[in-house]
Amino acid sequence: MSFVNKQILVTGGAGFIGSNLVIKLIEAGANVTVLDSMLPGYGGNLFNLAPVRDKILINFSDMRDWHSLSYLVREKDFIFNIAGQVSHQDSMNDPMMDMEINVKAQLVLLEACRRFNPDAVIAYTSTRQLYGRPQYLPVDEKHPINPPDVNGINKLAGEQYHTLYSKVHGLRTVSLRLTNTYGPRQLIKNSRQGFIGWFINRAVTGEKIQLFGNGQQLRDFNYVSDVVEALMLASQSPNCFGKAYNLSGDKASLQEVAEKLIRFCGTGSCEVVPFPEERKKIDIGDFYGDSSMFQQDTGWLPMVNLDQGLLAATKYYQEYKEHYLGE
Amino acid sequence: MSFVNKQILVTGGAGFIGSNLVIKLIEAGANVTVLDSMLPGYGGNLFNLAPVRDKILINFSDMRDWHSLSYLVREKDFIFNIAGQVSHQDSMNDPMMDMEINVKAQLVLLEACRRFNPDAVIAYTSTRQLYGRPQYLPVDEKHPINPPDVNGINKLAGEQYHTLYSKVHGLRTVSLRLTNTYGPRQLIKNSRQGFIGWFINRAVTGEKIQLFGNGQQLRDFNYVSDVVEALMLASQSPNCFGKAYNLSGDKASLQEVAEKLIRFCGTGSCEVVPFPEERKKIDIGDFYGDSSMFQQDTGWLPMVNLDQGLLAATKYYQEYKEHYLGE
Repeated sequence: MSFVNKQILVTGGAGFIGSNLVIKLIEAGANVTVLDSMLPGYGGNLFNLAPVRDKILINFSDMRDWHSLSYLVREKDFIFNIAGQVSHQDSMNDPMMDMEINVKAQLVLLEACRRFNPDAVIAYTSTRQLYGRPQYLPVDEKHPINPPDVNGINKLAGEQYHTLYSKVHGLRTVSLRLTNTYGPRQLIKNSRQGFIGWFINRAVTGEKIQLFGNGQQLRDFNYVSDVVEALMLASQSPNCFGKAYNLSGDKASLQEVAEKLIRFCGTGSCEVVPFPEERKKIDIGDFYGDSSMFQQDTGWLPMVNLDQGLLAATKYYQEYKEHYLGE
Repeated sequence: MSFVNKQILVTGGAGFIGSNLVIKLIEAGANVTVLDSMLPGYGGNLFNLAPVRDKILINFSDMRDWHSLSYLVREKDFIFNIAGQVSHQDSMNDPMMDMEINVKAQLVLLEACRRFNPDAVIAYTSTRQLYGRPQYLPVDEKHPINPPDVNGINKLAGEQYHTLYSKVHGLRTVSLRLTNTYGPRQLIKNSRQGFIGWFINRAVTGEKIQLFGNGQQLRDFNYVSDVVEALMLASQSPNCFGKAYNLSGDKASLQEVAEKLIRFCGTGSCEVVPFPEERKKIDIGDFYGDSSMFQQDTGWLPMVNLDQGLLAATKYYQEYKEHYLGE
């Protein structure tokens, strides 16, 4: 696949997955514009882009802003649409904000493309959250959709817009339903980008990791470079357009992940505590997905196993601690 | 069931289904506040409320307005949440407007109830549109969800919010997925409230009804009084809370409906024309639903068959033509 001299827009490009993607695209010879609103607490971090700072154009604006989007989408070959509100708990506390970002802003982007750049490829990061509590495992794309929280409902609408705009308006969209993604450049100050960032924080700072329930809940995990590879592959695979695919990876219990992190860091500890009531209400139990459809359609194969990935992540945060744990 | 002296809010209460419901609730002894934004072209029509004009409180405001809603929901026993954008074609031409009304405004209402009136019963009018093109007939509630247009995506999100707020926050919500509803007080100036209002318009004014394709597409139909009865029953059935039910009724092809209308009116004619491209893209083929789950849980039974209903509807519009066809 080639991105040489391609014009690319990455929404949420200063955030976790976005910045890792931007760095890879620059290595691949692309011309990249980053769009990021830098909303406090949402994961945008300019240090993430330090390796490519002088090779990219950064545009600070919000995806909800029609004026900004309707200019920025023009003349782009690829748009990687990564910006989003990802905290399940935040979506319950402030549903309107989640709706604005995960629903309204998606329509703004798609309408802007429909009017001003209908030929762009748009790759969207959806989520396995829209399946809700699994009815069977592993969860494939035929599994019923049953979002367990406001975030799941809104991300579903965002994904459905992408699919619809492909079907009805002929846009070249593809959605990847991400599972737990982890690695360098993640927001780890709090648990907004998932429990794994917070576990890393606790381990790296020598604090206690709290496991809710019994810690035996199963999840599956993708290292961020594998997700970046998946997004790049999807965007260059016309047979994927108009579809939504699962990504999935190595399985482990929350306790296993915590213990690995403590071992790799050499610091931290863990304890089992009762489930907080507000989290229990939206918890989905065990979850792991089946990504064989995406693997068949693109040849994607995750390359970094959980041990390798967690080791690389802990090393990164130990080295650059001040950029991820400071004010 | 009793609504005597109950405090009731009806959103979209000056519109088609809303106004029929308001009249019935007043007959049942309730105290009714109507909320309507009177958006031009959306179906709000003060003539609809003429029979009860001095017995109700009408509040002109928009469901998207947090300030208005957060006051109006207080001290209500029942909230019938009927307001919505219902045109599939409009949702494709102006998706942002559809999203504002069918997604954002629903969150405003539910958040207002969560904070200021968590005990109210909330009955929501969802739509069979969220199933998309049927995979089997009749369509029951287990049928996969696959919205074929922006309206379907947004109404799905609105319904899912209602169900979620029941499950997580304990609100007493129930959703009814309406099929083609028709009868007095409908918007018939254009096809925004479905083809049947437009067919009535053409027949009553002696014009030509255009049938797209071959006119043999099957649909099912509910007369508005049966839908009003269903909403009232659902709101008084605690076993329904937290759920979403199909409504369904008599089946007929579009051509059969057109021919009945022409016969009952004594005016009008019909012709078969090719499917317009923009409509074909979001057409769902044959559709009829299975409402046995709702019938079992509430004892609801539609009382007005298609012939009776179409006859009553044509008589109504012939008598009150100037209130539905004028400027």
